[in-house]
Amino acid sequence: MEITFLGTGSMVPTIERNATSILISYKDENILVDCGEGTQKQFRYANISPAKITRILITHWHGDHIFGLPGLLTSIAKFAPEKRIDLYGPVGSSHYLSILLSSYIPMNKSNITVHEIKDDCIFFENKEFKIKAFQLEHTARCLGYSLIEKDKRNINMEYIKKFGLKQHPILKDLQNGKDITWNKKKILAKDATTTKRGKIISIVLDSLATKNIITNIKNSDLLVCEATLGSELEEKAKEYKHLTSTQAAQIAKDSNAKKLIITHFSQRYKDVSPLLKESRKIFKNTLAAEDLMRVLV
Amino acid sequence: MEITFLGTGSMVPTIERNATSILISYKDENILVDCGEGTQKQFRYANISPAKITRILITHWHGDHIFGLPGLLTSIAKFAPEKRIDLYGPVGSSHYLSILLSSYIPMNKSNITVHEIKDDCIFFENKEFKIKAFQLEHTARCLGYSLIEKDKRNINMEYIKKFGLKQHPILKDLQNGKDITWNKKKILAKDATTTKRGKIISIVLDSLATKNIITNIKNSDLLVCEATLGSELEEKAKEYKHLTSTQAAQIAKDSNAKKLIITHFSQRYKDVSPLLKESRKIFKNTLAAEDLMRVLV
Repeated sequence: MEITFLGTGSMVPTIERNATSILISYKDENILVDCGEGTQKQFRYANISPAKITRILITHWHGDHIFGLPGLLTSIAKFAPEKRIDLYGPVGSSHYLSILLSSYIPMNKSNITVHEIKDDCIFFENKEFKIKAFQLEHTARCLGYSLIEKDKRNINMEYIKKFGLKQHPILKDLQNGKDITWNKKKILAKDATTTKRGKIISIVLDSLATKNIITNIKNSDLLVCEATLGSELEEKAKEYKHLTSTQAAQIAKDSNAKKLIITHFSQRYKDVSPLLKESRKIFKNTLAAEDLMRVLV
Repeated sequence: MEITFLGTGSMVPTIERNATSILISYKDENILVDCGEGTQKQFRYANISPAKITRILITHWHGDHIFGLPGLLTSIAKFAPEKRIDLYGPVGSSHYLSILLSSYIPMNKSNITVHEIKDDCIFFENKEFKIKAFQLEHTARCLGYSLIEKDKRNINMEYIKKFGLKQHPILKDLQNGKDITWNKKKILAKDATTTKRGKIISIVLDSLATKNIITNIKNSDLLVCEATLGSELEEKAKEYKHLTSTQAAQIAKDSNAKKLIITHFSQRYKDVSPLLKESRKIFKNTLAAEDLMRVLV
């Protein structure tokens, strides 16, 4: 899985930090999480075609997370008119999207299916991965997301040789966790395969620290978490229901994350290294996101 | 008058050309013409505070001319909550703006008065200048604008000396074109003053070439005119009701403009010098706009 930070700012974009947008690329999927103003231009800087987007996950309908949607959708509809995009978001998403799409004179028609997510759940699943949403605690209805790669079973070729079995279509069954019979002998999937645990990427933007976050993001290989403010502004963060760099690190620690990337920085921080330092005190393996940064998970 | 080209692209923004937006600064006024996506970031690059905007003129409600409005208005409302902005545009502007402002969860409230302009008219006037709107011919209801500086009278001090008159409050009357009496002698404003003609900036975006444009923009000191396509795509331009570089130059020539700046280039032109060359063949004093270019008139 590759994650590209298209925008790492918050309410007010700066020259260095565009409004929030994150792209997760995994096999044929390109999943965009939020779409702040100027996201389509960030795609240009990242040299990725927005027409490759397969799904859009919206955390919430504050402007800094969605002002880039109409431009992005207009461009996609121009260059890939047949393209169908699934957009997921909290309750109210259909309402806001339909209003947004009627707020200007369209030059072409977007082909979007909206899915509203009410409760914490896995709302998408295919052969390779699933996506989970969970409630956050912000000043607007807001969701966190986890992309969960499915575990993969690799055949222990040495083991199955003992049964006189080599490459054969029946191995697919073992790979899918099904026991098989070969030469009248039973081969158990659990013995004949080793499991490679799938990776988990969790994204927590715009929230207070809650137990529900910890419950849902446990053991993430990568946690991307907002740290709008430093701990010196903890009261302000609380008032606007945002996380500080210290709180983000505590969430990473409590949820047993492997790696933390903090993002969604207030425009007041020209240099975010003090926030990074705060986080690292609590959770060592922390990075501060920069626009156009790419990370492999 | 200073004009700053914040965005010089058209429907699809590129790294080099943001979507359309032009700022005209004149004394205490900062008038924004259109507001494509990312305009607030362009303000940052131009090192101008968007809170300085006094009026916004919208040519039409196609996305590439307005997608930057919600972000810009949100930022202005954050940093200058008392700020009141007048927004002018074609019939339908109130409808589109009110929908646009309800398409997201607001974090603060914008203070905007919308003025819809139905017919060709001067819709704003103060001591120093007036603004005129005129109908264009596009695929959406679309307006062109002229900013017309008022003529100024300078006192001919040598002339009034003959009447025994020097600095005196009564000179204000002469400056306002009023004849006065001094030492029982009549002094005529036309004799005692010289007139400095006010400058005219006209902006024509997204239109076919029409007689109405020529009628309205006559004798502009600067004509800013769209040239979305080159003449090799004249048929396409006609289909989408846009101007070519050749047509823009012909308009400048026919309307007796002093200077032409072409803008609103299609993303297909990485290099617009062929378009500039075409224009210059017909109207020599032509420039091609670039993002963040500033021109004094």
